[in-house]
Amino acid sequence: MTARDLGTLFDPRSIAIVGASDQPEKYGNWLARRALTGHRPTYLVNRVRPRVLGRPTAASLVELGEQVDLAVVAVPAGSFEEAVDDALGAGVGVIVGITSGLGELGGEHLRRQRAVVERVRVAGARLLGPNCLGLLDHSTGLHVCALDVPAGPVALLSQSGTVGIDLAAQLHVHDLGLSRFVSVGNQADIGIAELVDACIEHDDTTVIALYSEGFTDGRGFARAAARANRAGKPVVLLTAGSGEAAARGAASHTGTLVSPRSVVQAVCDAAGVELVRTPTEMADLVQALVRTALPPGRRVAILADGGGHGSLAADALDARGLIVQPFTAALRTRVSAELPAHAGTSNPIDIAGAGERDIDCFRRVAEMVAHSSEVDAFLLTGCLGGYQDYGAELAAKELQVADGLTRVAATSGKPVVASLVVDRSPAARALRAGGVAVYRDIERAAWVLQRLTWRSLAGPPLVPETPAAQPPVREVGYWPARRVLTAAGLPFVRAAEVATGRQLTVAAAGLTYPLVLKALVAEHKSDGGGVVLNIRTREELLAAWDDLQVRLAPPSCSVEEMADLRDSVELIVGVGRDRAFDTVVLVGFGGTNAEVLRDTQLALGPVDPATASRMLGQLEGAVLFAGYRGRPALDVGQASAVVSRLSHFAAAHPEISEVECNPLAVTPHGVVALDARLVVSGAAVTDPPVSVG
Amino acid sequence: MTARDLGTLFDPRSIAIVGASDQPEKYGNWLARRALTGHRPTYLVNRVRPRVLGRPTAASLVELGEQVDLAVVAVPAGSFEEAVDDALGAGVGVIVGITSGLGELGGEHLRRQRAVVERVRVAGARLLGPNCLGLLDHSTGLHVCALDVPAGPVALLSQSGTVGIDLAAQLHVHDLGLSRFVSVGNQADIGIAELVDACIEHDDTTVIALYSEGFTDGRGFARAAARANRAGKPVVLLTAGSGEAAARGAASHTGTLVSPRSVVQAVCDAAGVELVRTPTEMADLVQALVRTALPPGRRVAILADGGGHGSLAADALDARGLIVQPFTAALRTRVSAELPAHAGTSNPIDIAGAGERDIDCFRRVAEMVAHSSEVDAFLLTGCLGGYQDYGAELAAKELQVADGLTRVAATSGKPVVASLVVDRSPAARALRAGGVAVYRDIERAAWVLQRLTWRSLAGPPLVPETPAAQPPVREVGYWPARRVLTAAGLPFVRAAEVATGRQLTVAAAGLTYPLVLKALVAEHKSDGGGVVLNIRTREELLAAWDDLQVRLAPPSCSVEEMADLRDSVELIVGVGRDRAFDTVVLVGFGGTNAEVLRDTQLALGPVDPATASRMLGQLEGAVLFAGYRGRPALDVGQASAVVSRLSHFAAAHPEISEVECNPLAVTPHGVVALDARLVVSGAAVTDPPVSVG
Repeated sequence: MTARDLGTLFDPRSIAIVGASDQPEKYGNWLARRALTGHRPTYLVNRVRPRVLGRPTAASLVELGEQVDLAVVAVPAGSFEEAVDDALGAGVGVIVGITSGLGELGGEHLRRQRAVVERVRVAGARLLGPNCLGLLDHSTGLHVCALDVPAGPVALLSQSGTVGIDLAAQLHVHDLGLSRFVSVGNQADIGIAELVDACIEHDDTTVIALYSEGFTDGRGFARAAARANRAGKPVVLLTAGSGEAAARGAASHTGTLVSPRSVVQAVCDAAGVELVRTPTEMADLVQALVRTALPPGRRVAILADGGGHGSLAADALDARGLIVQPFTAALRTRVSAELPAHAGTSNPIDIAGAGERDIDCFRRVAEMVAHSSEVDAFLLTGCLGGYQDYGAELAAKELQVADGLTRVAATSGKPVVASLVVDRSPAARALRAGGVAVYRDIERAAWVLQRLTWRSLAGPPLVPETPAAQPPVREVGYWPARRVLTAAGLPFVRAAEVATGRQLTVAAAGLTYPLVLKALVAEHKSDGGGVVLNIRTREELLAAWDDLQVRLAPPSCSVEEMADLRDSVELIVGVGRDRAFDTVVLVGFGGTNAEVLRDTQLALGPVDPATASRMLGQLEGAVLFAGYRGRPALDVGQASAVVSRLSHFAAAHPEISEVECNPLAVTPHGVVALDARLVVSGAAVTDPPVSVG
Repeated sequence: MTARDLGTLFDPRSIAIVGASDQPEKYGNWLARRALTGHRPTYLVNRVRPRVLGRPTAASLVELGEQVDLAVVAVPAGSFEEAVDDALGAGVGVIVGITSGLGELGGEHLRRQRAVVERVRVAGARLLGPNCLGLLDHSTGLHVCALDVPAGPVALLSQSGTVGIDLAAQLHVHDLGLSRFVSVGNQADIGIAELVDACIEHDDTTVIALYSEGFTDGRGFARAAARANRAGKPVVLLTAGSGEAAARGAASHTGTLVSPRSVVQAVCDAAGVELVRTPTEMADLVQALVRTALPPGRRVAILADGGGHGSLAADALDARGLIVQPFTAALRTRVSAELPAHAGTSNPIDIAGAGERDIDCFRRVAEMVAHSSEVDAFLLTGCLGGYQDYGAELAAKELQVADGLTRVAATSGKPVVASLVVDRSPAARALRAGGVAVYRDIERAAWVLQRLTWRSLAGPPLVPETPAAQPPVREVGYWPARRVLTAAGLPFVRAAEVATGRQLTVAAAGLTYPLVLKALVAEHKSDGGGVVLNIRTREELLAAWDDLQVRLAPPSCSVEEMADLRDSVELIVGVGRDRAFDTVVLVGFGGTNAEVLRDTQLALGPVDPATASRMLGQLEGAVLFAGYRGRPALDVGQASAVVSRLSHFAAAHPEISEVECNPLAVTPHGVVALDARLVVSGAAVTDPPVSVG
């Protein structure tokens, strides 16, 4: 199915409300009342009552005998299948399932829902929901949900009905309406990815706002979101449930370091999606993405009409990593020419009570400063919007100043953001209408400027393609796994498998001392005394062999060169497989550091060497790579190449649920894999994890 | 002067507005209009106009010839002294200086302000401001400022006029009014500490909210705030300017680790003051401190009317370190008896659409859960307040539910907090009026619950007393400083000063090998090869001596026992002197860790050993003290004792601006000071810093 199929969802020629009701506490009542206000032929279906809302009803869609493009089904769960079959029998193209008590309950209910979807698909129809609130589209005048919001530039797609209502209400506070609202419910058929695609071509949509707790097709969503971003339509995502999910994810070692929220964050980083934590963050960021430009850098100028607000703003921006630097003497001189003697003329600017006498100074100073090359973004804070209290004359001037500030926003090409004590004044509304993002609280304004700056400085969205699957790995003994990982580009030390003293002598002749001898008896070799390190001579090697035979009688051993680890740093490199988003790559500091510092970076896999290098560079301890305190610089280039190779290997092997190299030693002269784990599911699901190295 | 003197400030028998004006853009107009609405004799003074606001004026207070207790002076800066002298000549008891352009500009202006204060004090009068907006007191009906807010339980003391207006507006959103508002301005005479004290005895004040950028008497403020907290009146402090101030503080080594904000935080920790970052945080926390109990622990129950809001709330609480744990089977069974079949009955509870049919279930479930011993706090989130849209019947029931929830708050003795989509509804107002703290955004509710929990789990306020000054340290050579610090309890290794080979032999006989020999030539001894380590025999000692004589020819040397540092951890212990708050104590991990990890704790000094032990335990790396990974446990008791001793030493020596021991090695068997720095100002200000150890 392609996005084109959703044309009927958003613009049906005729609609029906199945389960229309006269009782105001029933959703079928709200729906029917809203739907009847539209311009389309709208039919009401009720199995029992011949009239609803003063209009005749049909007992079923088949009995109705009219062409219905879209049927909204709001019947009890027990009658859902019957209503769907009726709709399909009547040739309905899209069914909107309001009914709850289906797949969201799992088990038998989920099987029932799947069977319904199968019948819908066989009939060539589509299903939104079930367990949803319906949808509206202000472009086509379709209104089949209880939500009542003005038209605007935001497409809102929400898995939860009440969170959707919350988000719409918060956007309304910012004078923002919706282009579309789609309550996606259980996403049994139509999913978020497809809906995002449908919004890319939707002219009235500027920003796509999304609430989802889970993703049925995570990669598909990521690709659709990246397409939307490339098309200039930012996607903002609100998710929930990371706490519990984090606990579930703690099964494997890599899992304990990776919370599902961090996976979602990695996906968002790749796709250019803005991930937020609360409905308030969503509305605050959407406002700015709709209204303002992105800042070319981190330098923010502050204009306040009181020293306190200037200082609070400087602190808030500073805490968010933005730069409030003093102006040059030249700019200070120009600013001071517009302000009274005791005004603060550097950054923050404090007009120091000039507002009452010369309110236009706000505009003149903003014009001058926002256009300056010393500034990437402009923040107004304080009492603009409150000068109306001084009487009609000042109120009129205040509105002119607000208009002037919107021109500054338009002509400077930089974001103009305001944090105003009186944020619902006529001046504040004029600012919003003209492209200034207005907040009540300085912390929200600072947070938004931080997010705009991150967005501006991030690279273009890039969702990596999953490579074609390669022949599956089935053998998971020490040597087969080592061969597979060596072939994948993991740089183990040179080694040989030996089962007899004769093989040992031959192997040793091809290796360079010092050597290591390992008994291949158990996963944790070093714990049982099965590893002899730093063997310097042939005699020591033979003695170690004899000792291992006596103590452990291993079926075979591995004789290996001993790596030179002077000045090295140990990394952990893991590639896991998220149920929704597939390959995920983790890098971090290995050994005990992995647990104490929890200094890790995650990315959607597979990663190219440049992305791997960026991940390593973003570790908090990255300073260790660059010749810390006089030590030689480490070979981060080789480390990045190995991370990339391992991620491509795992991505091409869907049967591998997890591969982890810990530690990967990064030395001044290259990298060495000192241990690795491989977990194979599917075909080899009964095999134990294999530890190699 | 004692707090009693402020009686006239808050309840004068008569008042005068000096600089009363007819022009609405002048503050003297707003002030006069407000003041004239009061019940006190109120006089207007204007040097030029015989009538203002339709009333006769006097040209001066002396000319007025009436008894005036309080005079508000709102004249240009150039006329300020004249107006003050007039007021003092007329026997005014308290002057409120609105006039700006004085001390806040520094230099000559500050000297002028100081001279005015001197004259005020000589006359036995008091001065609020200058550069302030005035004050109001709803208990006495005094209203001499432009701010217009209803009466309520919050005393608001603000250094900035506009931030005060902002705070009052934000409190108003939470249906909270003010008991008093005092704009403190430049605090030239009356300071915040004295005003806090005056609010302790003020019956109409429940919480004291404070905006201040600086403290003229920091210890005095801390002591007053601790007194207020002990009297059951929480103090909430908003400050600004930490960014710039942090840069100024970077002068010394300890300074680079300590930002002034962290000093203020340490003061607040000691005094039980709630430090916040924005006006919104201030209003949000004040609402809860006025309305709710403190939670006995971290366990929060969530009640939602939608799965999405329940999940968002759980994530928000989890991110703030609060615990959303599943209920026991017993409690789940009781909850499920009140809810429909598919409701979520553990934690978060999701009533799953039951609200429309059985809205009272909110109350029944809250009653049951909030009183349960499994729960320390109760959070309601979602759409309560929006059910009124279903008609008058449900609107009435919704208000009954809100009343029921306030009874739950009252009877459970636990905080009940709500995050509501419709936060200005009649139900929301009823909740606020009845002791439930209501927020619009879940993040704000979660933050408030975190802060209430911290407050509940913190110890009682305790501002340490500064010990009596001891005879000042003046000699700052290596050995004098070492002797002083040894006497103060810093455990250096045994050592002796030697200037000749003969002294060396005698000293070595009293010390235990291995030894260290240090040439006392420069501050950084080890850099110039002036330190010979691990000297094992008398012969090696003599050879090292000869070598140092040939290479460096030091005037003298120090021969010292070499500390056994196996399994030790290195700390940094610093005691600095903040201009406003005096002694401040820092502990952290020393050596390179100090710079890389920035893992430090700060406290107002001097600290007792228990406080020092708590500081060490709160370091992120504190796990290293307790026998990490099989190593022996370290002597944290001795380390705490040394931190305490060093802090008392510094507190008793005001001439010492900084003393730092880095590293202080904590071993399994005690602690050893390996190096120390002492910076003496005042008498010995020309001496260089001395490094000892």
